[in-house]
Parts: sequence; structure tokens; C-alpha cells
Amino acid sequence: MGAQGFFLAVEGIDGSGKSGIVRSLAAHLGAEGRDVLVTREPGGTPEGEAIRGLVLAGADEAWDPMAELLLMTAARVQHVRRVIAPALAQGRVVISDRYAGSTLAYQGTGRGLSEAFIRTLHAEATGDLWPDLTLVLDLEAGIGLARSRRRLTGETLDEGRFESLDLAFHERIRAAFLAQAARDPGRHAVIDASGTPEEVQARACAALAPFLAQAPV
Amino acid sequence: MGAQGFFLAVEGIDGSGKSGIVRSLAAHLGAEGRDVLVTREPGGTPEGEAIRGLVLAGADEAWDPMAELLLMTAARVQHVRRVIAPALAQGRVVISDRYAGSTLAYQGTGRGLSEAFIRTLHAEATGDLWPDLTLVLDLEAGIGLARSRRRLTGETLDEGRFESLDLAFHERIRAAFLAQAARDPGRHAVIDASGTPEEVQARACAALAPFLAQAPV
Ligand SMILES: Nc1ncnc2c1ncn2[C@@H]1O[C@H](COP(=O)(O)OP(=O)(O)OP(=O)(O)O)[C@@H](O)[C@H]1O
Ligand SMILES: Nc1ncnc2c1ncn2[C@@H]1O[C@H](COP(=O)(O)OP(=O)(O)OP(=O)(O)O)[C@@H](O)[C@H]1O
Ligand SMILES: [Mg+2]
Ligand SMILES: [Mg+2]
Repeated sequence: MGAQGFFLAVEGIDGSGKSGIVRSLAAHLGAEGRDVLVTREPGGTPEGEAIRGLVLAGADEAWDPMAELLLMTAARVQHVRRVIAPALAQGRVVISDRYAGSTLAYQGTGRGLSEAFIRTLHAEATGDLWPDLTLVLDLEAGIGLARSRRRLTGETLDEGRFESLDLAFHERIRAAFLAQAARDPGRHAVIDASGTPEEVQARACAALAPFLAQAPV
Repeated sequence: MGAQGFFLAVEGIDGSGKSGIVRSLAAHLGAEGRDVLVTREPGGTPEGEAIRGLVLAGADEAWDPMAELLLMTAARVQHVRRVIAPALAQGRVVISDRYAGSTLAYQGTGRGLSEAFIRTLHAEATGDLWPDLTLVLDLEAGIGLARSRRRLTGETLDEGRFESLDLAFHERIRAAFLAQAARDPGRHAVIDASGTPEEVQARACAALAPFLAQAPV
């Protein structure tokens, strides 16, 4: 836990509803009078957004998995040192749409890099900053992909790289998030991300409440 | 040493004459009938050149040193796996204008990051690939800066970021290259980079000859 503030990460497969939940949680907490900062990964700083552009615009095989890991971690260094840590030091609630759990899932489980090395790198790069709570939106990969596909129809497709991989891959990512939660249950909450946005939002608020009640915010 | 081929890196402070020496050595070795590949860092692949653009275009304080290290290493992963290792496997002579020695010097000595961590990262990222020979062009920082400044007059200035730092910094970088050579003399050669280009070129050829004589190329 940060000395002050509260750091919430929202994780889950593509289309699980992370960005929507981040928005609705921020609105909810803001209405409660809390000082909320919403951010995202990869990105969250001008430099990190430039890295995001490099990685997500590339063709499937453009980046070696190790290079991708280092780029994601470089973006996270900027994000933690320039945005997240200062906001926590000011006692704010930081909500990040993806964080290190996505690196463990996509570059570790997904691309086969060593989890031990990813954790060592994370520790060295961020001072081992982990969220006070990681909210895992759990959903069947097929439903997530269907939601994403619907959304992408109206969007540019250049950010859809990870989504062009197959269903089995996304089920492995889903299992990776569940395994992270099982490994460190005190700082994770898994919620069912199926159902209406209102239902999922109610589950997210319920999962978050006991953590926030104990936080210095 | 690579199982086959020969890997030469040319290192030294800004303006020490690396790029000129790389060109003249390549011409010399090509005239001897060797199959030479010239490349550079950061860069050497389309992805690495894009990273180079991100790093060198930034303002002095844009990148946290740790992020800079990870970006440089990401570029090196692409370079080693896509360009250098395949060329060495084909028995070619690879000449790189800067390599890992520059990371140790600039991000380690220059920016204060742990040398042990830089070496661990290098090992994990590249399979611990080090040049068969690193040629260090040794020059007073003031002379190097004066040479660079003359050159930059006719060039765009956006690649001059490192050169906007001060003389004392460049003397520390110079000392770092000398310390690397002292630490691993069997794979380094230091040459005096003052004097005319022809003089430096003659010294470089003389330093390289015994290493190449023992190489499988
Ligand atoms: N509970 C829900 N039921 C149906 N559709 C939903 C639900 N939640 C989100 N959606 C829709 O699914 C799509 C993906 O949601 P969202 O962008 O929030 O997911 P995400 O996890 O952020 O995805 P990505 O990883 O691709 O950024 C959007 O079009 C969104 O409106
Ligand atoms: N021996 C020399 N004497 C005088 N000028 C030289 C000599 N060698 C190179 N130069 C000039 O100095 C400038 C810097 O040389 P060069 O670009 O080869 O150095 P470099 O080490 O590659 O520098 P950088 O690190 O900035 O890329 C060029 O204008 C080059 O023509
Ligand atoms: Mg999203
Ligand atoms: Mg040069």
C-alpha cells in the first residue's frame, strides 16, 4: 500500500469492461467527495503514450516479446514516477486502466517470458509499487471479444493488435489474471463481468468498499 | 565470442570519430574480401530507429534514466535478435557504431543507474551477447565536443541532446569507457583518437588485426 492515497488497478481481458468500470468508479468516488485521478497503461504520460503508439501500431510480429516487455516497463517507469507516485503522495485515489498485472498476463503467460524476471524488472523499475487493490473483471474470452468487435466497428483498428490473436490465447490471459488474484488474495478482488454494465458496476463498488474503508483517503 | 562471425563494437564519447572509423574500417575489411555488416545503436532495426527517435528527440529531462535504460535495451533486443545474431551465424563481420558499452557509460556512469542491474538486464535481454572486440576511441572531451559542434552546424540539432550536457559529464563518460576496457582487456582495445582521421584509422586497423587473425572469418 502506498504510504498515503489509494491505488486501484482494473484488469481483465480485452472487452471485459475495464474502461467503462474505470469511468463509472471514478464518477462514483468523485460524487463521494474523493479526489480521484484516472489514468491508463500503457500510457498515462506523454512519453508513455508515445511508447503505447509504437507497440500497438506494430504488426503482430514486429516486436520481440522481450522488447515489448521492456517498452511496457519503460512506459510504466514514467507513469509511476511522474504521475502515480506523486498523486498517491498527495493522498489521492489513483485508478489505472491496466497496470503490472497486464504485463504479467500478456508478456508472461501470453508471450512466455519468465514471471520471475518480469517481477524483478518491475521491482527495480518502480520501487516495487503494486496497487492497494487490483480489481479483476472476469469474463469468458468469447464474450469479451464479441463486445470489443462491436466497439471496434466504429473505431480505428490500429489499437486492435492484441485482439487479432485467438480465443484460446485470451482464455489463457483470463486464467493468468485469476491466478494472480489467487496468489495474492489480500490485494485482489475478482468480480463477474458478465451481465449489464449496471450489474458489474454494483459488484465493483461492493468489492472496493471494504478496501477503501481501511485506506487513508 | 559469437560461435561464428566476428562482432566489433566501436565506442567513445561524442565526436570521438566513431562513425567515421566505422565507415573506413568497413571499407578496409570489404576491400580484403570480408563480408561486412555495418549497423548502429540505438537503432539498427526499424523498431530500434523508432525508439532512437523517441529518446533523442526528447528534452533533457523528458525521460527518467531508468526508462531510458529500458528503451535502449528494448532497441538492442530487436537489434541483436533480428540483425546481429543472424549475421554472425552467417559468418559475417558485424561492426556496430555503439553497443552495450554506451549503455554502461551513459545510463550507468552518466545517469547513475546500477551497473550490476544494467549487466543483469543485458544478459537477460540479449543472451549476454558481448562483442568479440570493443574498440574504444579515446579523446579529450573538449576536442570531441568541438568536433561535434562543427559538424552540427550543418545538421539538424534534434539528435544533439546528449551533447547539450557539460564537459565534466563527457569526461566521466570517457573515464567509464576506459574503465570498461581495463576491466576486460581481452575484449577491448583503446586507441588514441586524436590526430588526423588517417592516423586514427591506422591505429584502429593495427588494434583490430590480431583479433581478426584469430577469428573464424
Ligand atoms: N456489462 C457490459 N455488457 C455489455 N457490453 C459492455 C459491458 N461493459 C462494457 N461493454 C461494452 O463492451 C465494449 C468493451 O468495453 P470496455 O472498452 O469498457 O472494455 P475494456 O476492458 O476496456 O476493453 P479493452 O481491453 O479492449 O480496452 C464497449 O463497447 C462497452 O460499451
Ligand atoms: N581525427 C579527426 N580529426 C578531426 N576531425 C575529425 C576526426 N575524426 C572525425 N572528425 C570529425 O569530427 C566530427 C565527429 O566525428 P564522428 O561523427 O565520426 O564522431 P562520432 O564519435 O560518431 O560522434 P557522435 O557520437 O556524435 O555520433 C565529424 O565532423 C568528423 O568529420
Ligand atoms: Mg479499455
Ligand atoms: Mg556518430
